[in-house]
Amino acid sequence: MDSSKTFSRLNYENRSQLYFARAGIITPEMEFVANREKQKPEFVRDQIAQGFAVIPANIYHPRLEPVIIGKAFRTKVNANIGNSPTTSSIEEEVEKVYWSIKWGADTVMDLSTGKNIQETRMAIIANSTAPIGTVPIYEALSKVSAPEELTPELVLGVIEQQARQGVDYMTIHAGVLLRYVPLTSKRLTGIVSRGGAIMAQWCLAHHKENFLYTHFRDIIDIFRSYDVTFSLGDGLRPGSVHDANDAAQFAELDTLAELTEIAWKDDIQVMVEGPGHVPLHLVRENVERQQQLCKGAPFYTLGPIVTDVAPGYDHITSAIGGAIIAQYGTAMLCYVTPKEHLGLPNKEDVKQGLIAYRIAAHAADIAKGIPGAIEWDHQMSKARYEFDWRRQFELAMDPETAQNYHDETLQGDYFKDTQFCSMCGPQFCSMKMSHTLHEAKANGSKVDLENAMEEKAREYREFRESGELLSVKNPENGKF
Amino acid sequence: MDSSKTFSRLNYENRSQLYFARAGIITPEMEFVANREKQKPEFVRDQIAQGFAVIPANIYHPRLEPVIIGKAFRTKVNANIGNSPTTSSIEEEVEKVYWSIKWGADTVMDLSTGKNIQETRMAIIANSTAPIGTVPIYEALSKVSAPEELTPELVLGVIEQQARQGVDYMTIHAGVLLRYVPLTSKRLTGIVSRGGAIMAQWCLAHHKENFLYTHFRDIIDIFRSYDVTFSLGDGLRPGSVHDANDAAQFAELDTLAELTEIAWKDDIQVMVEGPGHVPLHLVRENVERQQQLCKGAPFYTLGPIVTDVAPGYDHITSAIGGAIIAQYGTAMLCYVTPKEHLGLPNKEDVKQGLIAYRIAAHAADIAKGIPGAIEWDHQMSKARYEFDWRRQFELAMDPETAQNYHDETLQGDYFKDTQFCSMCGPQFCSMKMSHTLHEAKANGSKVDLENAMEEKAREYREFRESGELLSVKNPENGKF
Repeated sequence: MDSSKTFSRLNYENRSQLYFARAGIITPEMEFVANREKQKPEFVRDQIAQGFAVIPANIYHPRLEPVIIGKAFRTKVNANIGNSPTTSSIEEEVEKVYWSIKWGADTVMDLSTGKNIQETRMAIIANSTAPIGTVPIYEALSKVSAPEELTPELVLGVIEQQARQGVDYMTIHAGVLLRYVPLTSKRLTGIVSRGGAIMAQWCLAHHKENFLYTHFRDIIDIFRSYDVTFSLGDGLRPGSVHDANDAAQFAELDTLAELTEIAWKDDIQVMVEGPGHVPLHLVRENVERQQQLCKGAPFYTLGPIVTDVAPGYDHITSAIGGAIIAQYGTAMLCYVTPKEHLGLPNKEDVKQGLIAYRIAAHAADIAKGIPGAIEWDHQMSKARYEFDWRRQFELAMDPETAQNYHDETLQGDYFKDTQFCSMCGPQFCSMKMSHTLHEAKANGSKVDLENAMEEKAREYREFRESGELLSVKNPENGKF
Repeated sequence: MDSSKTFSRLNYENRSQLYFARAGIITPEMEFVANREKQKPEFVRDQIAQGFAVIPANIYHPRLEPVIIGKAFRTKVNANIGNSPTTSSIEEEVEKVYWSIKWGADTVMDLSTGKNIQETRMAIIANSTAPIGTVPIYEALSKVSAPEELTPELVLGVIEQQARQGVDYMTIHAGVLLRYVPLTSKRLTGIVSRGGAIMAQWCLAHHKENFLYTHFRDIIDIFRSYDVTFSLGDGLRPGSVHDANDAAQFAELDTLAELTEIAWKDDIQVMVEGPGHVPLHLVRENVERQQQLCKGAPFYTLGPIVTDVAPGYDHITSAIGGAIIAQYGTAMLCYVTPKEHLGLPNKEDVKQGLIAYRIAAHAADIAKGIPGAIEWDHQMSKARYEFDWRRQFELAMDPETAQNYHDETLQGDYFKDTQFCSMCGPQFCSMKMSHTLHEAKANGSKVDLENAMEEKAREYREFRESGELLSVKNPENGKF
């Protein structure tokens, strides 16, 4: 292959999509996502060049199908997988990757903290068409006996090794500064981000500044060669609605904004992570503040969960917050499963979390007017109005569940063609009556309905235009 | 009993709570709800007098525990039950009432359209402590062979009989006017409200105005004697996000506003029903428009569902819309179960629908600052931070599920006292690390952390006040 003719990122010192975007080069990855998102490649390039979108695509992730993350594009959903010290199996984790992608995960984070961290990750990357994210500090911590024993050299080594293995984006908790830690002391739930807690403990033990902050340029140097995307971790995110939008959280966000600009100066791609637990009325402020401070860098939030009282249902409490925060500009949502706060998700939990989040993301895409989003709904509504049950199942986010629920009441092929469902039965079906109305109109019926209705419609428009309230002075039958 | 000393609504011609509220009388029902809502009885009376809240309490519903529905109070959730022509059993429906109340339904609507409609309803009322609502036109339709055969006399007879049986509120589709029907012809899903479709078909067949509209005062006369509350039906509500906030829907709302004032003139309590299917960005307009036009009368919405593509998960698609519409002023949410659009809900579906809606309602109550709402979250967060698993289960909206999920990974009593959970394990638990931080501060640790942190906090506050961006000019170690 003649590399002078075929474009390859390997021929450049900086392999980041941001570098090429700014140089005016449309990479194969940009072409790919443009096609997927029904956008022009030049629009994709421009969004990346401005820092509004990222394509996390490590040069060493061979099976990757690139994904673009930015508010002008379809809202993405991330699924967290990974073992823990109490449960562990490489096969299970690879299975979870396939399963996650099947149920709509756009990216997958390997948050393993148990045994065989490296082997697990390598198996995950080798098998994943979705971008893979990690939190390198987890692996680093597994090599020492306490957070305060971490050293910059150790962590940078882990980051470099993970980059070489093909990790597409990494959460770096560089915004947990020493002077912010005391701001968490009045919180109800302290520091709930694992990475945040690790770094805070290190800072206090040594009474030194966070080494991820002081060594940020060393990390940039690594990321440049592999095109690893920063996911700037929000280590001080709130862990309860009580602690939402507090001084600690927003202080860290100021630092994440500063780090975004530093990474951008070196043409490195950046996402910024967000909360967490936020009551409904404070959700919007999170994304608007992040977008303003971080100058449009993609926001990547965990939910947020809008109430703390429903463990076992946090995929729902957080799909509510997720839909709203995505509507106002969050580019990627990190899913929450029904097991959140209680245990590790199994396969069914992963599926439930993903579906709740795809609902949230799609609802936001409709609201944002993302190209192609609402057409899916229109197709479903058309099938519903036409009593085309098979098409409804086909179009459903989860076809199997939709069909099973339908068949629970009305089994058999006959009922796939009926013009009603078990909810209302044949006489009460409003859609059926609505069809009858249309037919009556079409046939002229007894009275000249079509004309009569036209006239009534005209009457109505005049009434609306006149601005008059509907009069009840001369009601029919002496009543109104 | 000396009725001159003991207050009884039976001694008055108008038995409605609105009548008494306006007369300055605090009824036993007002006292009861004031106590439940932690509000002053006089505040309750005033909210009712202004029409901002209703207490649906038929004088013939003996076991009723009154409930107040208004935006200044806890957001209420309604559960729909009832048989259909394809499924039917009185015992099952009574069981569903108990089950609904157990899982948090504040009111229950009996939407039976199958066999034994009267017996089913009477059994439901006799067994329910929650207010019962109905749609009388359903029973009326069961007495004829087609909608066009309905007569005002027949329907008024059904309404009177249901009122005498103790129904607390009734959905009356009096806003589906003849001239509005043509406005639905360009819709994707026509008319999806059963009551709306019935009335539209009647109007067109006779080419006459909706008799529920022309006979509205006759209905008022019945409601007055029993204190039945109007739930003004939105027969032209959208059945797809495509049809949301369209001319037909808002035309009907204008008429519902007119009818609200007419009912109020006769001291009859009124709620107004709302959609349905509405995309995220159009949700807020629905409640704000209703509140303005209907002068603060309680809004009672069905969801809304924010995307049409997830049949099988419409409890989630609509909990998202429900949370937002309640946040902006909806007083009661009618639940949607996972079986919506597919079949009749079984017991588990009823539970899933109710929990999703209680989450939505509670999230909205936190956002609205309803007294006592956020304290529940704070108690849960405190238990979480203290690793008090038993207390977390106790406080959970669904204690059983929360405990089962926890025990799936970590069984046995030992793990109820552990200072970590299966998600992170002992070394990685952020909350545990957060505790360690607090202890380090308390003990002074190696360095004088307490003072050092105070100083850092001061430094931070000065920095925030100065408005300066964080400087990276003199970074530690030659890096930042």
